[in-house]
Amino acid sequence: MTIAREIGSRDISLWFADGSNYPGTQNIRQRRAWFIESLQASHAALAPGQRLLVEYKPFEPAFYHTDIADWGMALLLARAAGPHARVLVDTGHHYLAQNIEQIVAWLLAEDMLGGFHFNDRRYADDDLTLGSIDPYQVFRIFHEIRLFEYETGRRADIAYMVDQSHNLKGKIEAMLQTVATAQELYAKAAIVDHAALLDAQQHTDLVRAESLLQDAFATDVRPAIREWRTSHGLPVDPMQAFRESGYLERITAERGARTTSRASSYA
Amino acid sequence: MTIAREIGSRDISLWFADGSNYPGTQNIRQRRAWFIESLQASHAALAPGQRLLVEYKPFEPAFYHTDIADWGMALLLARAAGPHARVLVDTGHHYLAQNIEQIVAWLLAEDMLGGFHFNDRRYADDDLTLGSIDPYQVFRIFHEIRLFEYETGRRADIAYMVDQSHNLKGKIEAMLQTVATAQELYAKAAIVDHAALLDAQQHTDLVRAESLLQDAFATDVRPAIREWRTSHGLPVDPMQAFRESGYLERITAERGARTTSRASSYA
Amino acid sequence: MTIAREIGSRDISLWFADGSNYPGTQNIRQRRAWFIESLQASHAALAPGQRLLVEYKPFEPAFYHTDIADWGMALLLARAAGPHARVLVDTGHHYLAQNIEQIVAWLLAEDMLGGFHFNDRRYADDDLTLGSIDPYQVFRIFHEIRLFEYETGRRADIAYMVDQSHNLKGKIEAMLQTVATAQELYAKAAIVDHAALLDAQQHTDLVRAESLLQDAFATDVRPAIREWRTSHGLPVDPMQAFRESGYLERITAERGARTTSRASSYA
Amino acid sequence: MTIAREIGSRDISLWFADGSNYPGTQNIRQRRAWFIESLQASHAALAPGQRLLVEYKPFEPAFYHTDIADWGMALLLARAAGPHARVLVDTGHHYLAQNIEQIVAWLLAEDMLGGFHFNDRRYADDDLTLGSIDPYQVFRIFHEIRLFEYETGRRADIAYMVDQSHNLKGKIEAMLQTVATAQELYAKAAIVDHAALLDAQQHTDLVRAESLLQDAFATDVRPAIREWRTSHGLPVDPMQAFRESGYLERITAERGARTTSRASSYA
Repeated sequence: MTIAREIGSRDISLWFADGSNYPGTQNIRQRRAWFIESLQASHAALAPGQRLLVEYKPFEPAFYHTDIADWGMALLLARAAGPHARVLVDTGHHYLAQNIEQIVAWLLAEDMLGGFHFNDRRYADDDLTLGSIDPYQVFRIFHEIRLFEYETGRRADIAYMVDQSHNLKGKIEAMLQTVATAQELYAKAAIVDHAALLDAQQHTDLVRAESLLQDAFATDVRPAIREWRTSHGLPVDPMQAFRESGYLERITAERGARTTSRASSYA
Repeated sequence: MTIAREIGSRDISLWFADGSNYPGTQNIRQRRAWFIESLQASHAALAPGQRLLVEYKPFEPAFYHTDIADWGMALLLARAAGPHARVLVDTGHHYLAQNIEQIVAWLLAEDMLGGFHFNDRRYADDDLTLGSIDPYQVFRIFHEIRLFEYETGRRADIAYMVDQSHNLKGKIEAMLQTVATAQELYAKAAIVDHAALLDAQQHTDLVRAESLLQDAFATDVRPAIREWRTSHGLPVDPMQAFRESGYLERITAERGARTTSRASSYA
Repeated sequence: MTIAREIGSRDISLWFADGSNYPGTQNIRQRRAWFIESLQASHAALAPGQRLLVEYKPFEPAFYHTDIADWGMALLLARAAGPHARVLVDTGHHYLAQNIEQIVAWLLAEDMLGGFHFNDRRYADDDLTLGSIDPYQVFRIFHEIRLFEYETGRRADIAYMVDQSHNLKGKIEAMLQTVATAQELYAKAAIVDHAALLDAQQHTDLVRAESLLQDAFATDVRPAIREWRTSHGLPVDPMQAFRESGYLERITAERGARTTSRASSYA
Repeated sequence: MTIAREIGSRDISLWFADGSNYPGTQNIRQRRAWFIESLQASHAALAPGQRLLVEYKPFEPAFYHTDIADWGMALLLARAAGPHARVLVDTGHHYLAQNIEQIVAWLLAEDMLGGFHFNDRRYADDDLTLGSIDPYQVFRIFHEIRLFEYETGRRADIAYMVDQSHNLKGKIEAMLQTVATAQELYAKAAIVDHAALLDAQQHTDLVRAESLLQDAFATDVRPAIREWRTSHGLPVDPMQAFRESGYLERITAERGARTTSRASSYA
């Protein structure tokens, strides 16, 4: 927290690996009490304007129980910590089949959504690039945020972060891909006709309501995004621009030179 | 609630099948607001001493989202409803791999556990007889309750209910089996050495702590339960007593006679 | 099978609800042997040109074990039945997180894919309309079929069927929506550049290979499909055409008149 | 395989981490063909009496698709490899809710079960100690093996192995615990009354059949195992014997002395 203050970071994002591997080995309620105690102490050390973001994860690396297993535990701990604590949603930290956008909607309604760690996954916390497995789900998450903003007339105060593990793709390429995907899926969410949607929901016109989401998702927003890039003096195709820039080759050469003098390195 | 008052039922147990089947068709936050409104109205109608028990379920019969999907939503709704609302845990209403006893421990710590609907399952809400698939899990749930009572010195105020669907087994046989299993698993939980367990947990002696649970579970408590039955003038083997009683044959004959005059019946 | 022969149905599609609800109550290997015996007898009764399609399902309505739980069991039974038996894939009959398109690719490689029962789901066998929850997955299934056809130069002999349960949407509307969605997702799969894809796979160019799928999926194929409908003399917007046709009102009135004389009806 | 031959190891156990992380990046059918090719080459290099054991795993470290995702793929690859290839079942390598003992029963019926990697888990491939999360499931696996042996009159040729990751427990303690648990759960499976079980199954007497498994599981077999240890001159309590032996302290001191001269070590 001292570091966060010095570098001017607003959000202190907390993920705890703690828990237990075997039934009986730890006292679940005692550990909850310890968590409340330590989060309150952390909260008291916040500078004005700073926030605590409490992350949850139902499994791994603690296998039998993780201390903050789900959004319910994270919310209760954040409330117990103090008024500037919020919940952080890592999209990969859920049970299979869990409706993540519903959790997002509830956290928004409870004024407890602090931020996201975005990534995608198939089975566990796979940390794949955003939207690579289930793009419609990411779209629905963005949609819940946009609908909240439309209905309340105010901006949701959310820290958008990416938490991925690029172990096969090039790291910079993967990040470019992630940002481009986020732009596309957010743009699709932005063109949902909210007034028509609320009307269809109000009249329980299921097919019309559903189609409003589906039509927005089916729309090809890439031309509009390319135009936006051009109008802002940005490369139309970020991936191509990166590849043509020679940046990767340059820093690889520089870092390689720097690290040959050492015994080992992750460059 | 009028009926509950008239028949002297303390607990009003609420399970809502509501939700939506398709993304976009319903407004999740609006429905949450309606739920708060209606639960507050219900709470206001409680007679002195009565409680509202709010049940959660993550899927089925609403397939895309169920309004009260998990214990976190149930807890927030129960808190919003009023001081006499609690959460009801149906053991079959969880995501796969969810640690149910951890939820039980949290609800106890938050003073929000109202009751159980017991059953067992493999994949979904299968409503099989208690302990038929995973008896060690039921034992761990009972253990968390017993440990809470040991540490706090007071009885947890929990409504124990069975919510099963006996579509192949005879209904009375299945209930006898369920009660006998509950007795056995509860008795195993009751013989855990709590003082030794807390000591082992305190010293992070993992194998000793875990073994205290495992040894209790491995103990054959059936002889003690049989003795207890004898000492209370109860049949030593309830299933055998039921079969020898002729009760099933008698009521089957009686109901058959009564129903032959009607077009259809579930007897 | 007699009926199938008389009405000229090529495929006998078999789904078995059988299994057991409780460990120990049935002999798994004995039941497998009975299945082989009965499927061989059924296969022997096939008319020339007819096929047996063996469906699998890992849960429900048998809760502890279903006799044909997965594609592996279905394939082994189909092989044991005879040369004209194939596997039927119901997209909702899988474990959570299972990669369905991989199973489709294997069945194609083994020449054992007979057909599909299409639907979508979030948690269990929800039987929602195709692509309503995870459209990218349906696209990937179609892609594996198209890629197989591209590489082998022959048409995959697949029976495409819809197996959904429209309990909230109007049944005809839901089917129109399903067919339109299938057309769109299949069209997206059809525009994948297979030659470029195989080249990128060959060179382990991950981002390029992935992007070829993603770009096809991001393409808005609705204008092309509308054109195709016009060129074939079909209504451009099938849903609107249906609504304006008055068909639903007419048959509702007709069936209502016919059924008022009976005690009960599902109209 | 050369090493296996030289050290006289009968079983070559193969687990492949291969697969892909993103849709489209690899050709699933091409990789299957490569697997068949390489497994056939491996099989050809087997010495007389040796076996290939093909392991499957549905996820991790390849996140989108693993080449040998389930027992069906492993069985087909083993059959394609040659007559001395069998399937290896790692109990942690399954989808949630999958009935593992059913897979074991099928592999036995197909004469394709080669061995086990035992461990336990809650969510993913947690590699916890055997029976620590779901002991009844391990019992049911042993039961299927015993029942197969009872019915066929021959011993199942199975390589029993332990594949766990002891990252919190002491490694030797964890192995002692594992072996003791395996003894107990196997002993419980050994006392199931097979003749009575087959009779109850034959008569569809569900409660009696189920109770025969449950009663065996509820029996405390620890006294009999202790007696067996005594009669074989083994320590009655292996864990206590190990702790009193001073073995751990001795090798820790020895290895510590040996490794202080090196830069780094895993001792």
